[in-house]
Formats: sequence, C-alpha cells, structure tokens
Amino acid sequence: MATRQGNTIRFEQVCAVESSCSLGGKKESEGPCAGQFDLLNKDNYFGQKTWEQAESRMQQLVLQRAVQQAEGPPEVLFAGDLINQCISSAYAHSESGFPFCGLYGACSTMGEGLLMGAIALESGGAQRAAVVTSSHFCTAERQYRSPLHYGSQRAPTAQWTATAAGAVVLSKRGAGPRLVRGRIGQIVDFGITDMTNMGAAMAPAAYETLTGFFTDTGATPEEYDAIVTGDLGKEGSAILEELFDRDGVNLKTRHHDCGLWIYDLQKQDVHAGGSGCGCSASLFCAIVLPKLRSGEWKRVLFLPTGALMNTLSLQQGLSIPAIAHLSEWVGGEEKA
Amino acid sequence: MATRQGNTIRFEQVCAVESSCSLGGKKESEGPCAGQFDLLNKDNYFGQKTWEQAESRMQQLVLQRAVQQAEGPPEVLFAGDLINQCISSAYAHSESGFPFCGLYGACSTMGEGLLMGAIALESGGAQRAAVVTSSHFCTAERQYRSPLHYGSQRAPTAQWTATAAGAVVLSKRGAGPRLVRGRIGQIVDFGITDMTNMGAAMAPAAYETLTGFFTDTGATPEEYDAIVTGDLGKEGSAILEELFDRDGVNLKTRHHDCGLWIYDLQKQDVHAGGSGCGCSASLFCAIVLPKLRSGEWKRVLFLPTGALMNTLSLQQGLSIPAIAHLSEWVGGEEKA
Repeated sequence: MATRQGNTIRFEQVCAVESSCSLGGKKESEGPCAGQFDLLNKDNYFGQKTWEQAESRMQQLVLQRAVQQAEGPPEVLFAGDLINQCISSAYAHSESGFPFCGLYGACSTMGEGLLMGAIALESGGAQRAAVVTSSHFCTAERQYRSPLHYGSQRAPTAQWTATAAGAVVLSKRGAGPRLVRGRIGQIVDFGITDMTNMGAAMAPAAYETLTGFFTDTGATPEEYDAIVTGDLGKEGSAILEELFDRDGVNLKTRHHDCGLWIYDLQKQDVHAGGSGCGCSASLFCAIVLPKLRSGEWKRVLFLPTGALMNTLSLQQGLSIPAIAHLSEWVGGEEKA
Repeated sequence: MATRQGNTIRFEQVCAVESSCSLGGKKESEGPCAGQFDLLNKDNYFGQKTWEQAESRMQQLVLQRAVQQAEGPPEVLFAGDLINQCISSAYAHSESGFPFCGLYGACSTMGEGLLMGAIALESGGAQRAAVVTSSHFCTAERQYRSPLHYGSQRAPTAQWTATAAGAVVLSKRGAGPRLVRGRIGQIVDFGITDMTNMGAAMAPAAYETLTGFFTDTGATPEEYDAIVTGDLGKEGSAILEELFDRDGVNLKTRHHDCGLWIYDLQKQDVHAGGSGCGCSASLFCAIVLPKLRSGEWKRVLFLPTGALMNTLSLQQGLSIPAIAHLSEWVGGEEKA
C-alpha cells in the first residue's frame, strides 16, 4: 500500500513501463527529435477527413502499438486531450473495449494519467493500465486561436502546439523504468492573462509542485539526472529557473523542457517552443524512457504542466490557472 | 487490495461517505426534489458576474460545505464539468490548495470521480478523497446549443441541463454508505447523431455497463433496492428498460433516473427530463445517500451516463459516443 509524505505519494507496488509508443507529425519529423520517435507521419491528416479525426487516429496508432508490445491488454485506459469535451480521446477509443477514464489536465494530462495509472495498479484494481494523450497543431490552433488560413501573427512568447501523441502501458510486472513517487499538483494562478504566454502562467505551477516535492521528501535536484518539465518553452523555463535561483537552488544544470527539445526554435520558426498534451507525452516515450532503459539516466523527475483556461474565460478577463503533476522515475535496475 | 471479477473491481478497504452536499438553482428549487437539496439558490448567477463564474461558485459552495462536515481535508480532489476545458472546475479550485485531478466524463463525471476516489483510497495514496461536479443550464445552453435569447424551439426528446452541483467526501473511516464494487465503463457508440436525443445515445452505455456488471458478479437486479441511472431522461430510460425486457430481465420495477427525478416533466416544461453533470451528482447526494443512511435502501447501483461528443464532431457528421460508470453502494451497517 502506498504511503504519503505530505502531499507526495510513495508507491510500494511495482509500477513499471511495460511498453510505450511515441508519434510525431510533419513538423516534428523535421525537428531535432525526429530520430527518436517510434512513429512519424508527414501527412497531418493521418489518412482521415478532418484534423479532429486525425488526432483520434494518432491516439489509436500509439495505443495499438504500445498494447501490441505489452504482455496483455490494459484493464483501464486513462486518456485526454485539449479539444473541447476531449473528443480526440472519446472517438479514438469508442471501439477499443477498454474501461475508459477521461482526464482533463490540458498539457499536464500525461503526468496526471501516469499518476492515475500508478494509483490504479497500487490499489489492485488493475494489473495493467494504459495512458494515452495527443495534440494536433491544426485542431488546437483553430479552437484556441484563429482559423489557420487567416495566417495571423504569432507573438514571440507564443508556443507551437505539437502534432504528437504518446502512449504508455504500466504494469505490476516487468523490468522497465519504474514510477516510484508522485505528486498530484495543486492549481496555481499567478494572474497571467496573456494567452500568448502560457509558459509564464505554467512556470509557477511547476515551481509549486517541485518545491512541494523537495520539501515533502527531503530530496534535492542533485539526486536527479534530469528534471523534465512538460512544455514551459523558452519563456516559462527561464522563469522556473529564476524562481529556483532566488531560493539559491541551481535547477538549470539538470532542467530540460519538452517544449524546447521538440523543435529547433530558430530554424523551425516556433518562437518560444512546443506545447500541447502530445509534446511531453511523446517525448516522455521518445527520450525519457529510452534514457532510463539504457541506464544513461538513473533517476528522473517528469512534470508536465497544463494551463487550465479556455478562450471564453480569457475573453471574460480571467487569468490563467495552471497545474503540474510530478512523477519520479528510476531505471529498471535502480533501487526505488 | 482490490480484486477483479472480469472488469468489475471489488474494493477491500472501507470507502465510506463521510460527508456530502447537494445544491440546486432556481428551476431545481421549483421541482419535486426541492425539499431534498442541502442548498438552494434562486439566483442563477450565485452572486457572480458571469454564468461560468456562477458554476465555479456552485462547486465551491458544495465542496466547502462537504469538507466542513468531514473530519479532515481531502488529500485529493477529483472534479470535472461540461464546459470547454472544464473551466468551471479549474477556476473553482484554484485557491483551494487541494491536490487536483481534472476529469472529463460529461454527465457521467460523478460516477467516474467516485470510482477514482475509491481507487485512491484503496491504494493508500489518500485517506480521504473528494469528488465534485456541476452543471449550469445557461453555461451549457450557450456552449452546446444556441444563445439563450434566441429562444429556439426545443425538441420533445431534448433534456434540460440542470443548474446543480454535488460534492462527496470519501474516507477510509466512518459509518456512512460504502462503495463496495465498481465498474469503469467502456465507450459505446450506437450511431445516434441527433444531439437533441442524448438519452437514446446514452442508454446503450448504461446497458453495456449494467449487463457487464451482472455477468461479472452473478448479481441480479432483484438484489438491489434501486438501480439509479444518471440522466437518461424519459426517452433513454424507456430504451434501457426495453433492452433489458428483451433479455427477459425486469429492470423497470427498481430503475430510477435522476433526469426524471429532478423536474416535473409536464409542469416544468422540460420535455424529456433533466441532464448535466450536476443532475446525477446533486441527486446522488440529495436522494440516494440519505436513503442509504436511513436504511430505507440497503443496496443500490448508481450509474451516471455521459455523452462524449462536442458540437464540432456532430457538425462533422459523427455519431455520439457514450459511457456509464457504475458503483455499488451499501448502507453503513450492511455487509459488503
């Protein structure tokens, strides 16, 4: 049975990655992580008629591949995405037959799902749990911002929603990387109202979750080979590192951000970096897990961040609430 | 540790309702359940400037009341709603400080949250978990259908989104009604494309979850004092009962539907009944839990249903996927 240190949960059962799959679209296949994705497709329609159906197809592709490589089917599936009423997830899995839990955590969804999966395994309610999430530049852009053919100007702090997806199968057996501790985030609202600067809204949530984790556990950044945030991008990453600097803690030397990994910021004209549920989900599968499997990294913190506003709440003058869900991972051979 | 029978989870730890709170708005305070709500408010703005903020306020009100009556604060909060990106939940709890998990299950959200709460308790990751959800006629109407001042005609099969909220605090201690078994639903899509007939889209999901539960466990409808669906309304309830009739199973005599409880269909001009996350959530707290506490009911199945489309997916010609999450409840003194 799991135990708690403050708001941090320590899992006692094995929660190991049995299989995973990452997928990227056109722009992602032209970026610096192209060689790491399991699947790449330069057709952003993924053979479908609409972008929304393409995003559902992306979730199917990564989940099917991950499940094929697992030792059995998941007994519960956690899924979510950015699109209104999470339709990318619902339509993707309407014929899967898997018990389905819909999540909404914006770009933190993979972090939330991994924790829900670990909790489900620890409870005995499932022996195997899957987590999948996605984002698609075209579905997000027209929903959150403006029709794509407007070709509206992008702010320098704006991030580029990744066309990407990731799926993980967690199991109580197996020698893969293990989730050993986790911290479900609290919602933090620092009063940011600029929807073209999500990084600034999300950085305080990452700070809150990370400092809470360090306080609860007595752990320090030095114990980790990498501390990987979701998609703070250039702006948010600088803010997070500065917040730690003020506390006299050097986060910079081991801090990575999926939003900075996924694109070449200059060459690919993506301004402050990548974002979207699929950004951190795909790179967790494409970069973090392989480094844990190979032993290059032995201990990692992974904390995707999410901005929890919608277009209406910003039109109504409200600021952007944000959240970050943290999971601690060790390589298959490492001590928990 | 929980055990499984097929896709049904049997909880071994106590998962008891420590406290709960239900809230209704103006129309709900004029309906047949008015006397059962813990809180009623005839001002559908709940003192706020926008309907969306009113819905957030409703979540705050029920959660605060439930937490005040619990023996301690929740260690995790599960919340969700119908509004794009679940903003009613995010803005409601941005200052609560509770570890927050956002869910999206449309009108099934309370069912999903209760199961997540039970799983969290069983895992040891939390000793106390809260679940809260809401819906608001005005926020839903303008998002899903048309601006309210259009006064557009409503189809006879249409349901009325309830302005209501419910919150439950689950605990490993206490003598309140207990959640003993649960079944996370699968997504079911029977090809219904009529967005004014959600009941027809959701009835097959309720049927799928219920028949799966009966098959897994060997239980029969006769063992229950009540089988309470979320908000199938008049149309969906008739379909569900007919599906069981065809199997030679009489569900009618013990089947209740929150969408039929909440309004007087004739006098209140609500056509096929109530709907919305808040409908089943508030009546679970206002009717089901009190009857379990008093001993009038000893054993109950509660299964809210959700329709997982959005307006865009219907415009794109897709049908409506649906889901139903089931929990089995016994009175505080009953054997699990």
